[in-house]
Amino acid sequence: MVIVMAVDATAGNVEAVVDRVTAAGGEAFVSRGVSRTVIGLVGEVDRFEALNLGGMPGVRSVTRISAKYKLVSLEHHPERSTVHVRGVPIGPDSVTLIAGPCAVETPEQTLEAARMAQAAGATLLRGGAFKPRTSPYAFQGLGELGLRILADVRAETGLPVVTEVVAAHDVEMVARYADMLQIGTRNMQNFGLLQAVGEAGKPVLLKRGMSATIEEWLMAAEYIAQRGNLDIVLCERGIRTFETATRNTLDISAVPVVQRLSHLPVMIDPSHSGGRRDLVLPLSRAAVAVGADGVLVDVHPHPEEARCDGPQALVADDLRVLQRSLLDLASVLGRKGPAQWSPRRLAG
Amino acid sequence: MVIVMAVDATAGNVEAVVDRVTAAGGEAFVSRGVSRTVIGLVGEVDRFEALNLGGMPGVRSVTRISAKYKLVSLEHHPERSTVHVRGVPIGPDSVTLIAGPCAVETPEQTLEAARMAQAAGATLLRGGAFKPRTSPYAFQGLGELGLRILADVRAETGLPVVTEVVAAHDVEMVARYADMLQIGTRNMQNFGLLQAVGEAGKPVLLKRGMSATIEEWLMAAEYIAQRGNLDIVLCERGIRTFETATRNTLDISAVPVVQRLSHLPVMIDPSHSGGRRDLVLPLSRAAVAVGADGVLVDVHPHPEEARCDGPQALVADDLRVLQRSLLDLASVLGRKGPAQWSPRRLAG
Amino acid sequence: MVIVMAVDATAGNVEAVVDRVTAAGGEAFVSRGVSRTVIGLVGEVDRFEALNLGGMPGVRSVTRISAKYKLVSLEHHPERSTVHVRGVPIGPDSVTLIAGPCAVETPEQTLEAARMAQAAGATLLRGGAFKPRTSPYAFQGLGELGLRILADVRAETGLPVVTEVVAAHDVEMVARYADMLQIGTRNMQNFGLLQAVGEAGKPVLLKRGMSATIEEWLMAAEYIAQRGNLDIVLCERGIRTFETATRNTLDISAVPVVQRLSHLPVMIDPSHSGGRRDLVLPLSRAAVAVGADGVLVDVHPHPEEARCDGPQALVADDLRVLQRSLLDLASVLGRKGPAQWSPRRLAG
Amino acid sequence: MVIVMAVDATAGNVEAVVDRVTAAGGEAFVSRGVSRTVIGLVGEVDRFEALNLGGMPGVRSVTRISAKYKLVSLEHHPERSTVHVRGVPIGPDSVTLIAGPCAVETPEQTLEAARMAQAAGATLLRGGAFKPRTSPYAFQGLGELGLRILADVRAETGLPVVTEVVAAHDVEMVARYADMLQIGTRNMQNFGLLQAVGEAGKPVLLKRGMSATIEEWLMAAEYIAQRGNLDIVLCERGIRTFETATRNTLDISAVPVVQRLSHLPVMIDPSHSGGRRDLVLPLSRAAVAVGADGVLVDVHPHPEEARCDGPQALVADDLRVLQRSLLDLASVLGRKGPAQWSPRRLAG
Repeated sequence: MVIVMAVDATAGNVEAVVDRVTAAGGEAFVSRGVSRTVIGLVGEVDRFEALNLGGMPGVRSVTRISAKYKLVSLEHHPERSTVHVRGVPIGPDSVTLIAGPCAVETPEQTLEAARMAQAAGATLLRGGAFKPRTSPYAFQGLGELGLRILADVRAETGLPVVTEVVAAHDVEMVARYADMLQIGTRNMQNFGLLQAVGEAGKPVLLKRGMSATIEEWLMAAEYIAQRGNLDIVLCERGIRTFETATRNTLDISAVPVVQRLSHLPVMIDPSHSGGRRDLVLPLSRAAVAVGADGVLVDVHPHPEEARCDGPQALVADDLRVLQRSLLDLASVLGRKGPAQWSPRRLAG
Repeated sequence: MVIVMAVDATAGNVEAVVDRVTAAGGEAFVSRGVSRTVIGLVGEVDRFEALNLGGMPGVRSVTRISAKYKLVSLEHHPERSTVHVRGVPIGPDSVTLIAGPCAVETPEQTLEAARMAQAAGATLLRGGAFKPRTSPYAFQGLGELGLRILADVRAETGLPVVTEVVAAHDVEMVARYADMLQIGTRNMQNFGLLQAVGEAGKPVLLKRGMSATIEEWLMAAEYIAQRGNLDIVLCERGIRTFETATRNTLDISAVPVVQRLSHLPVMIDPSHSGGRRDLVLPLSRAAVAVGADGVLVDVHPHPEEARCDGPQALVADDLRVLQRSLLDLASVLGRKGPAQWSPRRLAG
Repeated sequence: MVIVMAVDATAGNVEAVVDRVTAAGGEAFVSRGVSRTVIGLVGEVDRFEALNLGGMPGVRSVTRISAKYKLVSLEHHPERSTVHVRGVPIGPDSVTLIAGPCAVETPEQTLEAARMAQAAGATLLRGGAFKPRTSPYAFQGLGELGLRILADVRAETGLPVVTEVVAAHDVEMVARYADMLQIGTRNMQNFGLLQAVGEAGKPVLLKRGMSATIEEWLMAAEYIAQRGNLDIVLCERGIRTFETATRNTLDISAVPVVQRLSHLPVMIDPSHSGGRRDLVLPLSRAAVAVGADGVLVDVHPHPEEARCDGPQALVADDLRVLQRSLLDLASVLGRKGPAQWSPRRLAG
Repeated sequence: MVIVMAVDATAGNVEAVVDRVTAAGGEAFVSRGVSRTVIGLVGEVDRFEALNLGGMPGVRSVTRISAKYKLVSLEHHPERSTVHVRGVPIGPDSVTLIAGPCAVETPEQTLEAARMAQAAGATLLRGGAFKPRTSPYAFQGLGELGLRILADVRAETGLPVVTEVVAAHDVEMVARYADMLQIGTRNMQNFGLLQAVGEAGKPVLLKRGMSATIEEWLMAAEYIAQRGNLDIVLCERGIRTFETATRNTLDISAVPVVQRLSHLPVMIDPSHSGGRRDLVLPLSRAAVAVGADGVLVDVHPHPEEARCDGPQALVADDLRVLQRSLLDLASVLGRKGPAQWSPRRLAG
């Protein structure tokens, strides 16, 4: 930690800081400049945090140097991690495609979407049974019925299921059906929910909050990790900016930035970033090229009838182009691309 | 609703839209321009929403004209509301001061802060027992113990208690102690929580999400209202922007904008907006002048020892200046200011 | 300056930094922590900047402690300044009202607007002859003809003229007509223009860039000051955020933040912030209450015919209410309010 | 145009709008809904703009349907354009690499950087002689001397020169040396400068303003086009958001969004977006994959001595990796990649 004293800080102010630090078992190094004094702290940073040094007279700023997150940091675990969801890897060796309908509506629609996804190389099925919606008058998802449909479709197709959970008290129930628990953008700082999924024994897909900094996102992951679960995959889905041409602004730089700070895999959701079908393909290509460990896309057999986010869902033709692109790009970048369809997979 | 067709939309595309609308019981008015066709819709807007017209071929955009929220809208209830918290009014006639410690730490600190608040004219006591913190390693609040302390301080001072609830399954318990339930900025779109407080039978203080539009904020209020609870007070607490000189950017315009859209009272939290003690006083003055129904401030008897947000807490001297300012400004604006201290109040 | 070394920095890296600093005549204080080393620098900060220490091997970050601006800083000039525009003061003792049409359209419209402004207590007349417009197809202002109209109206009313200049090569010409030169939001970082107005010998009204930080704004003022002109008035006019309910988001906290960093007067433009007539009055009240040295508002005798920003222009009735409010609030805050109309003023 | 009337608009209000529109030679179609009336306008949109319909009593909103820009729109020119800079194409068939030092410092540094750029496949040399800097105390560029250095390096290497111009009165002079004129982010709405480069007879590289919407960016291009110059290349360089991990947030979606609205080529500047050397390579890959027509990167033979933006400049090794990546990705996407070095090119 580095403490910068105010211009008019007195010698007594400096001494008081040094005393509080040393009383807490730390060491304080004072550097007196022409106009200001700077104090460098060495010791247990967390203990210093508790001292509220920023509130002491004469202190202008307190800067923490080491990262606030530990378990998810690259310093803690210098190799990039691979998370396995019922055997399906998400990590540095492959480009994983997760696809499915935004919302589970009917068994037929879900199965059809799953088959479309699978034909395009998706190895994980996404689908929402609990939908956080801005309006109380909008379709809120089928709840447990939706989860049952997803489980049936998994039995039929072999695709493990990724689905969102929105409340701590639902985690146990959702975890009985799902293979991976998704935390949505609006819940990235629902700390009780993060702790609950941290204890649920299932991999977690943690979407970035729409106005969360990368540091806050990694802190949210740390909440999960701290409860003993390091099977966390991060997912960038666009942030909120002044630009209105897209639903959100995809912060593609977040992928390499995260990869320099954390060992966790990181994916991109081009469907929610852009909010427009015609942007999904170019943004998916960009995602793979920038080094993301996969993409998460909305598909729907009949988007014009979708009860949620129809305008951004891909249809069958789009998916074939997407698959081709991802395979080509992954190969250029030395990674395994999305699965290529084979009848045998379906049997498994 | 207004539908704008794409330049290359065919007559068949237009007809399909008209057919779908009329089949749903609506009326469609087609205006053919030189380069585009526009279709005006009349009827049940919610039914139109379900038709997914935006996904139909040839449709370029669909614009909803009437507000998405109803119960909280000014159209629904053309007079500004006053919400009563154990008899304390928040509404257009008065400038209400809610004050207290960011976090409840000890019985002594809470009582001392409450007495400071009361001496400065506060008529409601705020204090956090459940603290959502960015880091899992930071102080998370005392939980139910904190609620008990608040209840004891209420018994001692007569000040009704406003406190945050962070999970739907805690609502019942928190409501047993609190007089007003606060929804924090990170939970503004925790829809299950909104519904739970909507059913709890207590007034709600709904903080704006740090990246929520005013429309989304009112929609969040609508979630609460829809469960039968219209005792909602909105609280602007700063939004996230590129500016780093302040913790958040206080969107002071939100107050008059909300007042033209909704009948609900709206307050300002200058402590969390600015994140700096020296900004609380000028921002509080601005809050009253712009027409807010009150302010919500952090106070602490010993901010340098605060376990949460010490740098923004007011101390006793600040509070006297704040009280004077609020009284003067309120009187200029034809409102009742914060209570003026009298020994009798304490006895009550 | 404080330099934080990377975790894996070598002793040689540290030495190289120290050597470069001492070779440049500075002193370097090394504090070795458990995991990192921090180096505090004392000496001529500008010289250190030129050393490109951030690019040296093993350096993680370089933090500058003293402000980058000098002439406009409060440290440089610890008393708040008053800027005089042809004798009209803008500064801490008064609340100055600058009003007039967004664009000069005709002599009649300009004179009528000026009389409205004056009747409401304005002591300076604003009006645009050069209008930066987003579209090349929009009205771009009358140019020099507009300046002549403004000069005529000044002769008629006695109101000194504030008008925008948009290009360095126009400064001399505009300065022949105007009493105060306005730099608009889009030109806040048009550095050649800033330097030109710095040499023009007239007071400057410097609007904040719509996405400029407060630090960048003060740096822009420093560009003007560096050319020998300290008669600078800052004007906050809203920043760009995700919120679309208002044209811009008025960053009202900028006023007290600036006042703690700089001695320059600071005003608020509520017309451009909100972009809506109905917000001008509440935002003007907030401006005075927060401590701004004045407000700048659009007025138009016939807003429905305005060629620019009609929807935000005040009309005569609004102005009477505005004047009343500003007088009342200024008096509560111990300041002189806008002038009260007297026939004698007009004669002067 | 679509006009939505307020709920309480009278029949007279509606009639007044219709009358004004028809008096101006347009047609107005009135659709009366249950709660509101909507009026569709057909005719010359620009003429309607001048009517200030938004300011009429009872009008709630006026929405323009057709694009505000024409010459740069895809509707105007349905095929994607290729801009040639001294014979070097920028357009849909190729991935063009523009590289060079952020600032021209010395003849040696510039030549060395140009050779590095050329060896890596760059076909255009960038370099700044006029540097807009936030601080008046920072290096502002060599001015005309820098332009002469660039011309000399062009003579030596054969690389056409792209350089920034910051003032309208400099355009003629800069155009004598440069092959392509760059408009920087801070000048995107310096309309006089846009008009001047529109008349200079040289291709223009128009960077996006750091807080400009895509629509405003295209309107800025329209300013140039309106003066008869359609040789415009757009360049996305990051927008300003709340995220501080990167210098700016690269809005990669802007590329496909622009390509659906305009026929102009669009490039990406990964150096200024991220502000960090380690992000340039992944962001360049993403740029090509998303469909950009090229990338613009900073290179420096000795970044640790750079007088401007050293931390983001690529060095020789980085460039080899960049070239390899761009070639591979371009080939997968069916485009020509950056030039491969050959001694013959230098002779040309």
